[in-house]
Amino acid sequence: MLSRTTEYALRAVLYLAKSGSRPHTTQAIAEAVQVPEGYLAKVLSTLARAGVLNAQRGPSGGFTLARPPERVTMLDVVDALDALPEIKECPLRLPEHAPVLCPLHRRLDEMVTAMRGTLAATTVAELLEESAQPRACDFPPVAKPTVRGRA
Amino acid sequence: MLSRTTEYALRAVLYLAKSGSRPHTTQAIAEAVQVPEGYLAKVLSTLARAGVLNAQRGPSGGFTLARPPERVTMLDVVDALDALPEIKECPLRLPEHAPVLCPLHRRLDEMVTAMRGTLAATTVAELLEESAQPRACDFPPVAKPTVRGRA
Repeated sequence: MLSRTTEYALRAVLYLAKSGSRPHTTQAIAEAVQVPEGYLAKVLSTLARAGVLNAQRGPSGGFTLARPPERVTMLDVVDALDALPEIKECPLRLPEHAPVLCPLHRRLDEMVTAMRGTLAATTVAELLEESAQPRACDFPPVAKPTVRGRA
Repeated sequence: MLSRTTEYALRAVLYLAKSGSRPHTTQAIAEAVQVPEGYLAKVLSTLARAGVLNAQRGPSGGFTLARPPERVTMLDVVDALDALPEIKECPLRLPEHAPVLCPLHRRLDEMVTAMRGTLAATTVAELLEESAQPRACDFPPVAKPTVRGRA
């Protein structure tokens, strides 16, 4: 359904929404949400370009959510990755299907539209609120670097 | 949403449903539904293994639909490719999410379930019946080889 990339992006956004306003590095997010760091770096850059995340440079830089979780929907994340486009024209480019989609692609487009509706109606804040049982994105604590000489 | 592979499979099944009971070669199907032949060969084999298509060997062999179009749903095709599995366990394998999915994965699973319902409720025959405006899968005619000496 939604690609692995999209699911990684949703995980990362939820983690940042849950983790307050302090910037988090790619490494910290990758470790917390269990996604390969190199892969996640591209996803985070895409989310920042789309305005879902803020990217702050510098030694205490990192990523934060660009808006309050109440104003970020699941669809914002999905659309940042262009992961669920509506089917506006026949993928076969058949001339007789140009004005109206054929039944197969119309049916697929209806499913896309329904999914987009569900995603648009769900904010990141709602996902966090719903999380009492079990707690959403209660990611495992990130291991702190061992202090030398105490290991 | 659904992968390109799944869409190719749906195109091929519709083409066979529309083309009668005579076996069609991979090459003929690939040309009609505009999918690379090598790619489609794997998709057709998978559909045959799953019992959606029959594969007949020999010089006049090829693929046919294994059941009447009224008894093949879009979900049969999607499931043959394992393209839309339900989310039964936390992809993060977080122990506290083992008994109940977290809100993110629950929401995604609800969308999967809704899509599976739509796909299960739609037969290949219905897609063909709906096709009056425009005609579904009215694939372009396959170009016949030029007769030598007449070109």
